[in-house]
Formats: sequence, structure tokens, C-alpha cells
Amino acid sequence: MDETFVVIGGDAAGMSAASKAKRDEPDLDVVVFEKGQWVSYGACGLPYYVKGEIQSLDELVSVTPEEFREERHIDLRTGHEVTHIDPENRTVTARSGDGETVQPYDHLLIATGAAAIEPSIDGIDLDGVYTLGSMTDGKELREFVARSRESSPSDQPDRGPACQYLENCTGPVAVVGGGYIGIEMAEALVANDFEVHLFQRGDRVLRGFSQATSEAVAEHLEDQSVAVYLDAEVESIEGSAAVEAVATADERVPVEMVLLGTGVSPRTELAEDAGIELGPTGAIATDAYRETNLPDVYAAGDCSEAEHVVTDEPDYVPLALTANRHGRAVGQTVAGTPSVAGGIAGTAAVKAFEVEAARTGLLDEEEAREAGFDPISKTIDAKSRAGYYPEGGTVRVTLTADRESGRVLGGSLVSEYGEGAVHRSHALVGAVTEGATVDDLANYDLAYAPPFNTTWDPVLTAAKVLDGEL
Amino acid sequence: MDETFVVIGGDAAGMSAASKAKRDEPDLDVVVFEKGQWVSYGACGLPYYVKGEIQSLDELVSVTPEEFREERHIDLRTGHEVTHIDPENRTVTARSGDGETVQPYDHLLIATGAAAIEPSIDGIDLDGVYTLGSMTDGKELREFVARSRESSPSDQPDRGPACQYLENCTGPVAVVGGGYIGIEMAEALVANDFEVHLFQRGDRVLRGFSQATSEAVAEHLEDQSVAVYLDAEVESIEGSAAVEAVATADERVPVEMVLLGTGVSPRTELAEDAGIELGPTGAIATDAYRETNLPDVYAAGDCSEAEHVVTDEPDYVPLALTANRHGRAVGQTVAGTPSVAGGIAGTAAVKAFEVEAARTGLLDEEEAREAGFDPISKTIDAKSRAGYYPEGGTVRVTLTADRESGRVLGGSLVSEYGEGAVHRSHALVGAVTEGATVDDLANYDLAYAPPFNTTWDPVLTAAKVLDGEL
Repeated sequence: MDETFVVIGGDAAGMSAASKAKRDEPDLDVVVFEKGQWVSYGACGLPYYVKGEIQSLDELVSVTPEEFREERHIDLRTGHEVTHIDPENRTVTARSGDGETVQPYDHLLIATGAAAIEPSIDGIDLDGVYTLGSMTDGKELREFVARSRESSPSDQPDRGPACQYLENCTGPVAVVGGGYIGIEMAEALVANDFEVHLFQRGDRVLRGFSQATSEAVAEHLEDQSVAVYLDAEVESIEGSAAVEAVATADERVPVEMVLLGTGVSPRTELAEDAGIELGPTGAIATDAYRETNLPDVYAAGDCSEAEHVVTDEPDYVPLALTANRHGRAVGQTVAGTPSVAGGIAGTAAVKAFEVEAARTGLLDEEEAREAGFDPISKTIDAKSRAGYYPEGGTVRVTLTADRESGRVLGGSLVSEYGEGAVHRSHALVGAVTEGATVDDLANYDLAYAPPFNTTWDPVLTAAKVLDGEL
Repeated sequence: MDETFVVIGGDAAGMSAASKAKRDEPDLDVVVFEKGQWVSYGACGLPYYVKGEIQSLDELVSVTPEEFREERHIDLRTGHEVTHIDPENRTVTARSGDGETVQPYDHLLIATGAAAIEPSIDGIDLDGVYTLGSMTDGKELREFVARSRESSPSDQPDRGPACQYLENCTGPVAVVGGGYIGIEMAEALVANDFEVHLFQRGDRVLRGFSQATSEAVAEHLEDQSVAVYLDAEVESIEGSAAVEAVATADERVPVEMVLLGTGVSPRTELAEDAGIELGPTGAIATDAYRETNLPDVYAAGDCSEAEHVVTDEPDYVPLALTANRHGRAVGQTVAGTPSVAGGIAGTAAVKAFEVEAARTGLLDEEEAREAGFDPISKTIDAKSRAGYYPEGGTVRVTLTADRESGRVLGGSLVSEYGEGAVHRSHALVGAVTEGATVDDLANYDLAYAPPFNTTWDPVLTAAKVLDGEL
């Protein structure tokens, strides 16, 4: 096969596709353009780098550029930004320090990812406003943490109520957004003795999880000294050169730093310029093979949408597994084995200090109704291990089903860290994906032994209880 | 409803049925005969009672006899052994200290459980030979442990190679059988400083798990100072009044105690005498509602077989969840809502010292071929958390599928304790139960975050790798 596969973007989706295509079809020329210097890095690990649990950014890199080039024989060009796609002539134009390259392609993958959203508010450009979208962002945040700790004497007076549990109170700082980035960064900052104020625009953190999960996590954040502000949209950031405070409609909170965890949006400009269609979510639309409206042009990862296994409608959930999975499927297709990439269930997981939470499927009652379901939800608290077994905690499970068909639509779990909310959610992903009913789920023969659950695992108890309401 | 529901056996299946029936239909008279004094107890907790992690047998009781009688209004008669079922006249005869009772029934549940198997070998009746089938057994074993520890001076010389890691070496003792009871008891005994010799008739421990799981667990047992003997059937127990040694074909090992963990067999005598049919496994046969060949006579729990979700054939896997689930379904049926109890996947879990393991579905290649499949298996080792995330370990996953259809037949997992082999198996139970293919499983949108897995959870990696072989 004397063909060329060009990939735009060298992270999860792009490098998965490139690697899989080259492995399956070694005669294929595979060229990857990456505008930065980092490729195939675990952005999900950045909060732990800032926290100090990971010592070097290099540890986040699963495969180095050299390995891609020398061992996987991929023509990886870092520092190359693609500026134009010409679908007529099947070329892309890339710009680097050395000038412009025009690269022909037979197959093209757009894997341009997503960008951190910066809300359009006053003060967003002040010194001390950070996002966490890239390795560079991570580096800057870690440097900020190091500087603050150095300049913060241990005998300073208490700075605010959120300081009471901290040994050497530093800050205060603001985290804007109560999604997983905001929460993981709150953990990272508290671990470094920062007084953290977390602002959430809506009425609860972890919006996509169940109300019960959100409440458990918010309560835990407060226990861990994070000051949580709900229904508190940050309307401006104040300061002359550097950040001095954030202001909501209700109050003004003095802070030295602002971390924006206000979500991401797909990078679609390049695709749009080339005539590639976006879907209803605003991300790039594709078919089941991840092919766009242009022949032989694919999209995967955080720049694109995917079909939800419950609604069968396009959804935008930019997460690492989907990027890897869809990238890999495109690689396989390009190498000659057409491969459906599979849908998404909107599954997500987060560790928040000493609790863990996961969600999957359709939980929001309004969304469920829009998709034609008649949703009913039930939340239960169950022991994480046999009652008589030492230690253990509580797993809170919310299960949502369609009242008429009994189909499991989604679930949300929260437990102490280590008590298995996240791994137990695997049962719900199976049920949601397979279209199982609550009764089917209640009859799953799940593993049981006293150190791991009660005889009925919490997810079975939830199914049993919800089944009783149908 | 002026009817009477009689239950024979007051443990998981029996009390689940009685409780559910009475709750759903309070007018029903519910009578339970239990020959012992304990009801509704967690036999699965007995090893942890012997170990010393649970201080009182009462802690293993989830609901007391008084609560069943006073709060759930169940006519529970402990100390009553049913000696006869008369299906013609719809009565059962029970014997107690006060004489015989003849009790009419409209619906009858046989939940007589299983008995520990005692191999027919010389010396089986010697003092110091124990099984772990009942609360009384647990009590006696704990007393043995206490006595041995008292009489064992801490300055005694080393007694054998298995003693080297133990602070105050006691014993030696033999555990016969490398199933979950044998392994949990080995943990309990080592925790009490016993030198433990574990004898397994076959060529590996945890026979029903994958070879790879068995090997990982056996290796860990050796690391934890247990002397593991494979292909070592105990042919006799030697001693004059009390146990002095066990003998295999190859060697004679001096021991002070023998714990038999050689499996259980269903208690079916009462049922057989009444003309109730057994199935091919030797346990009581039932239909999907757990009804036997006699009308209105049901069987559930360890005395009965159940349909396997992969083979659709009867199987005998006496475990707590099935007993609870099937008992509950019978209760619901008897109360007027006919309820299918659901099949079994043969799922099992065990903690062995500092590792955990789970298995589900069909793993044995011979059994799979007999069921009409063309099995293929693959084992992978994967990190339990993101590579850069602190701590973590390895999850070893074996996945078995049908080569032609790609259907997932079964799986087996092992990891360090706390690294999620057991809860991750929930994904496989879903896939096995739903008849998912390996490709379906590889596309499951499982929860991911660095503290819980690599981007592809180990079960997804296993599916991906096995899919490549199909």
C-alpha cells in the first residue's frame, strides 16, 4: 500500500490512529503534524503534577517523539501547525520554524482536540489567571505553587475560614468551575496548603453526575477545607496588573490566583475552513467509522462528537478513552479493516480528595424526556463491604431507568476513595450499553465476598430498589 | 390470602424468601423450620471470625430470630428439623425437643443448603479435624486457635520452612483444599502465626479460575509463608486419638490440626424422599421460577442447581448471592407476582492475603467445547492505575471467547488487594450475561481517571488483545 495517512494533532486520538495504522499496515506512510513539542501525553495527570505527586512532566508522556519515529516508524513532525486543508487536491499545509510544507494525503485524520474555555469576563487577561489545558499550563501552575509556598511564611496569621485545616496557609486562590478539573485542582492546591475558594455557576458541583453524588462530593470538599460557592458565577476578576479578587453578583473574594476549570470547546476552525460539517453539539460530525462529510477525511478525539449508546444521538463528551478508542479505530480502518469505533455512554470518573465518583449514561431527567424516555431515579446508600468486615464505608448509588420499558438509562456512584464507586460503575456501563432492564441488572451474578461488598453489591441493591418502584 | 408458606431452612435462601413473601403479602402465614439455632447468618464471614477480625459470632447475623418474629411477623421455629415432606397431603413433619409437629402448607420452599464434604479417608474422625460449614464449626476453630496460641511459647525453635516469616510460630497445621475456603482459612491461620501446609489434589489452587490467576495466587500464598502442595491428594490422616500428620502418596507432613476445605454437596435427602427430582449436577432441579417437579414446591440456595447464562444448562454453584436472589424471587412468586429468578454466571471472588481475584462465566476450555463453543483465551498484565500515578499495581486479566462468534464466554482477574480485580470483574459479568462479543466489550465506555486505571481499563486491554487474535 503506497499511500499516505496524514494526522493533524499528536495526542491521544492522533497518535493512537498513527500507531495502529502503521502497525497494521507497515507499507503505509504515516505523517503526524503536532504544533507543540509534546505528543501522546496524559493531560489527565496534570493535576497530580501540580499537586506534586508526579515529579516530572516527562512521566506523563507514554511514548516519546523519538520512540514514535524510531520504533514505530511514524514521520512525526512536532512544531508544525497545520494552517490549511485542501480537500480538492488532498493536501494539508503546515507551518513551522523552517517555513511552510504542503503535504499530500490519501487519508486524513483531524485530531485537533479541544481548548480550555476562557469566559469573556473582565480581568481574564490579568497575571495570575490560569487554565489547565496543556503541558505548558501544568508547568506554569506548578511554578506558581512553588513560588507561593516559598514566599508564604509558616507563621502568618489565618487568612480566612477555609484556612482552618491547613498547616501553613497559603493563598487564597480561586478555582472557577466545579467539574472534574476544578475538583482535582482544588485537591492539588489544598495539598499544597492553599486556601481554596471554589465557584460553581450552577447549583451543584459535578453537574453531569446525580444530585446525590454532587451533594456528597460538595460536602466532602467542604470537609477538606475547600470553600464551595454554589449558584456563584464569577462575573469579573479584579486587579491592576495581577489578580486581586474575584467578584460574583453577591460578593467579592480576595484571591492571589484564579484557576479556570470552565470546560473545553472543540477546536474545529481548521475543519470548518475546509468545508467539514459540524454536528448539533458544535463539534465535528462523523459517521460510525469516524469519517466526516469529506471522503477519506476522519475526525476523532476531543474535536469531534460521538453517538450516545442510550439516545443514539450525537453527543460531545471529550474524554481520553474515547479519543484513544476512536483514534485506534480510524487507524485500523485506514490500514484496510473498516472498523466501527463504538458509541459513548458519557462515562466519567473523578477522585476528589478521599472520595471517588463515577457516572454513566443518561441521568438528567430533562435530557431523558427529550430522548423519548419517562425517567425515574432512585438513590440508595449501601455498605461497601460486608457489615461485619473491618473497615469499609458507604457506596451511594443513583440509578435512572425508563419507567415503561424498565431500561437502565444511567447511574451515578460515590464512595470513600478505595471503596469502589468507580470500578463498580463498570456493571452499569455494561447494563446501559447493552440496553439491559433494571430487572436484568438486579439479576446480574456479580462477584461477592465479604471484603468487597455485601451479598448484594450496592449496584444490585439499587437495581432491586428501583425495580420495586417500576 | 389465607394461605401458608412453609420454608425449610433458615439461612440466606430461606429467610430471603420468607421475608419477601411476608412483606409483599402480609396476610400470608409464613412458617420457617430451622434445625439449628442460628438463622440468616453470613457463613462467608466465618474465616474472618476465626482470623480474629470479627469478635463475636453475633456480628455475622444480619437479622436475629427475634427480629424475624417480632418485626417481620414470621413464625420462625429454630431447633426444628423437618424429617418428612408429604406432597400428597401438603404437609411437612418437623421434630423438635418438644416432639413432632405436622404443618400443612400451600407453598413450600426447600432451602436445606449444602454440607461440607468429608473425604472418605482414614483418620477423618480423629480429634483435630475440622470443617467450616456452620457457625458451630467456626466457634470450634476459633477455640482451637486460642488454645494453640496460649500453649505455644514464643521462644520455641523454628518448626519448619513455612515458619520463617512468622513471629511466634504455632502449629504446624494442614489445610486440605485450595478453593476459596481453604485459601481464606490459610490467611486466617497465618494471621494467628500458624505454620500452614496447604494441600491441593489438582495441579493448581482455585480450580475454577484461570490458570494465570491460580498461579498468581499460589505464588502469593508461598510469599505469605504458606507451604503449597500441588497434585497432592491427602490419602490419610494419621494419629492415635488426635491428628499427628497428613500423608499424600509422596510424603508425610506432621501437623496438629487439619482443616478440610474440600467443597460442599447439596442436602437433598429430604427432597429425594418426597419424590423431588434432582438434576444432572446432583442438586435439586427447578424451572426458571425455582419450582421443582412437584407443584408449589420450590427449591433455592445451596441445595439446588441453576441455569448458567452462557451454556443455558443447569449448573451447581452454591454461593450466597444466588441463594439470596433465588430465595427472594420465590418469596415474590409465592406472594402473587410470578418472578423468574435469573441465571448464574458462576461468578466468584476471593481475597487471599494481599491479593484479590474474581472469575465469571465459562473458562475451562473442555467445558466450553462441550457446550458447543470453540474457546480461545488470552491473559494480559496491565497497570491498575495510570503509569505516572503514585502507588498502584498490576491487574492480570484472562479473557475467554468463542472463536467463531466472538462471544465473551468468561474471564478471570487477579490483582493486589485494593487494586480492583474483583470490582472490575463487574464489567465482565455484564458482557457475559448479555452475550456481548469481545469487540462489544472492547468498546465499552468504562470509567477512567488516573487514580483508577490506565486510559483503557485492564478489562478493555484484555478485550482489545483477544479481539486481535480472533
